[in-house]
Amino acid sequence: MRSEAEHTARMKKVQAAQAKKLATKTIEKGLVIVHTGPGKGKTSAALGMVVRAIGHGMKVGVVQFVKGAMATGEKAVFDRFPEFVEFKPMGEGFTWDTQDRARDIAVAREAWDEVKRMIADPSYRMVVADELNIVLRYDYLPLDEVLEALAAKPELTHVIVTGRNAPQALIDAADLVTEMAQVKHPFREQNVKAQAGIEF
Amino acid sequence: MRSEAEHTARMKKVQAAQAKKLATKTIEKGLVIVHTGPGKGKTSAALGMVVRAIGHGMKVGVVQFVKGAMATGEKAVFDRFPEFVEFKPMGEGFTWDTQDRARDIAVAREAWDEVKRMIADPSYRMVVADELNIVLRYDYLPLDEVLEALAAKPELTHVIVTGRNAPQALIDAADLVTEMAQVKHPFREQNVKAQAGIEF
Repeated sequence: MRSEAEHTARMKKVQAAQAKKLATKTIEKGLVIVHTGPGKGKTSAALGMVVRAIGHGMKVGVVQFVKGAMATGEKAVFDRFPEFVEFKPMGEGFTWDTQDRARDIAVAREAWDEVKRMIADPSYRMVVADELNIVLRYDYLPLDEVLEALAAKPELTHVIVTGRNAPQALIDAADLVTEMAQVKHPFREQNVKAQAGIEF
Repeated sequence: MRSEAEHTARMKKVQAAQAKKLATKTIEKGLVIVHTGPGKGKTSAALGMVVRAIGHGMKVGVVQFVKGAMATGEKAVFDRFPEFVEFKPMGEGFTWDTQDRARDIAVAREAWDEVKRMIADPSYRMVVADELNIVLRYDYLPLDEVLEALAAKPELTHVIVTGRNAPQALIDAADLVTEMAQVKHPFREQNVKAQAGIEF
């Protein structure tokens, strides 16, 4: 084990390196953020960022494309901040539950129009399009229209898109992309069901 | 493109498969959850789960081991739910900033004692040990003590541990492990600084 003096000396060096690195990070801009991959945490991480944004007094719009009706936990909390969060759980469930493609497309269109309106309005500083990737995957919305809206977004607006199988063109257009990889999942391995606080 | 009838028939099949799969998921249990990996979203995803838990009226404890002082966004929100969330940003910054190993160890110990107390108390339904992995990585706390507390946790309590470089023994002990992989990060690629709503 290093002595205290060695530890301090080493940490001083790390601190200097960090400071040098940080000094180059001067740009402030609204980010296009994508959470994708098969692992858990894509929507949760978006919700966590919503919490942070609310805490800084930013106006946030959240539109859920798929599991709208199941979003009971986050809805109860965000409803307490009506001045900051516009929360729209617009999804009607999974497409295998609705079994009606025309209706799925209509729901996707309605949800996307909401997202588009929020993105175009610079008073929103963060817009979450939750599970938009799923809708794109099923071709329920034209990808080009999404890319166009993102390219035209106000400078400071953060847009977060979640869902597995993000299209490559969306990844290319994004600033920050995280892939959630599943290392272990209790659904598969232990037959644990979806639980309050974790999945909804 | 498939006809409507084909779509419906196919989705009925998927629905049946999903229902069959879901029927096997009957177990309800508190999970040990680990968010690790170099990508963004580890803490955010934990915060998102806290939001869901609060929304279901669960009592939640959150202890931040490292970036406590920077947690301004989430703190402002969670402070609005004092009946549900005990939020303790106990970290004093990165170890290269404090440069004092003895003090880092003392802070880690104090924070861990809080986590241990919360885990042992079944009135908490979710406990977040944010960046605990970092502290374990630096050997500021004995891993065995952490594994012991997790093994003895009340049946229904969810414990979420975040931070890169989760020790393998912790992954082995966990129910749900997600690795956040960095696909694209604007810090590195565009010199974008840490921003309100995203990092804090």
